[in-house]
Amino acid sequence: MHLLDLQTPALVVDAALLDANLRTMADALPGARLRPHVKAHKTTALAKRQADAGHRGFTCATVREVEGMAAAGLGEDLLLANEVLDTRRLGAVVRGGARVTLAVDSPETVEAAASGGVREVVVDVNVGLPRCGIDPAAAGELADLARSKGLSVRGVMGYEGHLMLRKDPAERAERTAESMALLLAAHEDVGGDLVSAGGTGTYAVNTWATEIQAGSYALMDTAYAELGLPFRQALTVLGTVISASAKWVVADVGLKALGMDHGNPAISGAHVHFCSDEHLTFTPETPARVGDRVRVLPAHVDPTIALHERIHVVDGDEVVETWPVDLRGW
Amino acid sequence: MHLLDLQTPALVVDAALLDANLRTMADALPGARLRPHVKAHKTTALAKRQADAGHRGFTCATVREVEGMAAAGLGEDLLLANEVLDTRRLGAVVRGGARVTLAVDSPETVEAAASGGVREVVVDVNVGLPRCGIDPAAAGELADLARSKGLSVRGVMGYEGHLMLRKDPAERAERTAESMALLLAAHEDVGGDLVSAGGTGTYAVNTWATEIQAGSYALMDTAYAELGLPFRQALTVLGTVISASAKWVVADVGLKALGMDHGNPAISGAHVHFCSDEHLTFTPETPARVGDRVRVLPAHVDPTIALHERIHVVDGDEVVETWPVDLRGW
Repeated sequence: MHLLDLQTPALVVDAALLDANLRTMADALPGARLRPHVKAHKTTALAKRQADAGHRGFTCATVREVEGMAAAGLGEDLLLANEVLDTRRLGAVVRGGARVTLAVDSPETVEAAASGGVREVVVDVNVGLPRCGIDPAAAGELADLARSKGLSVRGVMGYEGHLMLRKDPAERAERTAESMALLLAAHEDVGGDLVSAGGTGTYAVNTWATEIQAGSYALMDTAYAELGLPFRQALTVLGTVISASAKWVVADVGLKALGMDHGNPAISGAHVHFCSDEHLTFTPETPARVGDRVRVLPAHVDPTIALHERIHVVDGDEVVETWPVDLRGW
Repeated sequence: MHLLDLQTPALVVDAALLDANLRTMADALPGARLRPHVKAHKTTALAKRQADAGHRGFTCATVREVEGMAAAGLGEDLLLANEVLDTRRLGAVVRGGARVTLAVDSPETVEAAASGGVREVVVDVNVGLPRCGIDPAAAGELADLARSKGLSVRGVMGYEGHLMLRKDPAERAERTAESMALLLAAHEDVGGDLVSAGGTGTYAVNTWATEIQAGSYALMDTAYAELGLPFRQALTVLGTVISASAKWVVADVGLKALGMDHGNPAISGAHVHFCSDEHLTFTPETPARVGDRVRVLPAHVDPTIALHERIHVVDGDEVVETWPVDLRGW
C-alpha cells in the first residue's frame, strides 16, 4: 500500500529509524539489561521486535498491558511497575502461565497482591519523584510483610522520572547517582536480584540499576530529542489538508489525534496556530493546497499512540506493515 | 453493580444530571431546532437519548461517527460538519440507506463529495473562526459548482467557535449577530433550507440559525460551566488512590485517561500537582488512604471521552447502565 492510500489521521512510523533505535539500545543495554516499557507504544508487534532484539522481560504500566503482552506470547517476565488495588485480572494472567511481578509500596498493595493471586513483587521506592514509592527507610519492613504473606520479593524498583529531561548531562548523571543511592540503600534491606529503574533520559548514566525500564527510545519523543541522545524521532501523524485560505490552512489532525499535555504539535516548515477536536490550523512557509499530505510531529508520543487503533510502518512512501495498537485502555 | 465494583480509571456519568441537561435543551430548542453534535460524547446510546428527546438529525465530525450513527439506526439525517477528501466510506453509508449531508468549502471538497457518492452538501462558510469555511462572498459560486456536479445543496453552515467562551453574555450575543450576518448573506446566495450553526455557548443567543449544533450541553464541560448556562457537569473520571505519603497522594487517573489540552483536571477539595501517563499526584484537604475512590473532573470532556471504551451511568452509587463509546477513531 502507498502512503497516499491511508485514510487520515494515521500514525506512521519510519521502519529504518525504528530499527536503528532498537539496535542502538540493544547494543548499549543488551538482553536483560533493558526491560523495555510497553506503555510508550502499547503495541505487541513492536514489543516482538524488542524481544527479537534480545530483551525478553518487559515493563508495563496497566493491567491491560500485562494481559495483552501475555496473550501475545510475551509473558516470560512482565513487571507491572505500578500499584494496583484490584488484582483479580492479574491473578488470572498468573494462573494462565505468565510471569507477573507487581510493584508494591504500602501494606494495602501488598495485601492486594497476595489476595488476588499475584505471587511476585518488587518494592517500589521513592527516589525523588513526587509520585508512588515507599520511603527508602521503610522498604525492608514492607518486604518482610510481603514475604510473610507468601509473596516472593524479587528486589526493588525506583523511577527517577524527575531527572529524565535535565538538559545538562553531567547534572543528570550526578542527580541520578543520588537517586540510585537511595534505591541501593533500600535494596540492602529488601534483598532480591532486581534493581529496576531508569528510562530513556538516564539509560546511559544509570549504571547502578540491574535493568533499565526505557520505553520512549524506540519511537522517541520531542522533549527527549533535545537531549542529544542517539535515538531519532520515528513517529508522525499523517494528515490531509482539508481546507485552505490565503492566511492559513487546516489539516485533519486535531487534538483527539494528539497527546496534548506537552502542548501543540509541530510541522516542519510551518507555524502551528491551534488545534481543535478534529482540526489543526497552521500556516506553511510554502503554499499548501487542499488534498496535500502533511506530517505532524506530536509534542508527546505516548499519549498520542494511545488515541489510535493502528500504526502503519513505512519504508519511504510504501506501507510495509500495519500493527494494531492492542494494549490501549485499562 | 455498585460504583465500588468498577475497575478504574472509569468514566462515570450522573444519570439525573444528564437527563436534566437533555430536558433543558429540548425545552429551549425542541425537535429539529437542535442538531446534537455527537463528537461531544461519541456514544450512540447517548445519541439515542437525544433522539428520544425529539432531535432526529445529528451533527458528526468524522466519517467514523457517521458510519456508527447509521449502523445504530440513527441515520435519518446526519450532517458531517467537516471537510472530507476521501469520501469512499461516506458513499457506502449513503448507499446503505442513511441520509448524509457533507460540508464543502472548496472545489476540491465538492469534487470529492460528488465522486465518492455523497448526494447532499451544505456550503461551510467562514464566520470568523480561523479554521474551515469559504469566504461568504464566494459561497454562492461554490453552491453553483456543487449543483453542476449533481449535488443537492441543502443550505449553509458556519461555526462561530471563536465566540463560544466569551464570558460577557451581551458581547457574546452581539458578536454572534455579526457572525450570523455573514452566514445569512452567504445563505442568500446559496439557497436551501438549512442555516446550521452554533454550539452550547451560543445556543440561547443564536436566533438566526435554523438549527443549532450543540454537543457539550449533554455532559457539560469545565470551561462552559463558567458561563452561567443552565446545564450541569455530569461526567467525572472515577479513580482509586493507589499510593499515599505524608505530602501527597496518587490516583490511577493519568493523562492517558484525560483530555489535557485545557490543562490539568480538578478534584473537589484537593490541590492537583501534575499528571503522568497513568498517575495523578494531588494533595487532598483531608487525608486520603490507599484504596479510597476519587472523582476527577477533566478540564476538557470531549477528548477525555475519546480515550475510554465505555461510560458508566450511575444513580448515586449504583451503576444503572454501561454504554460503549462506539464512535471513537476515524
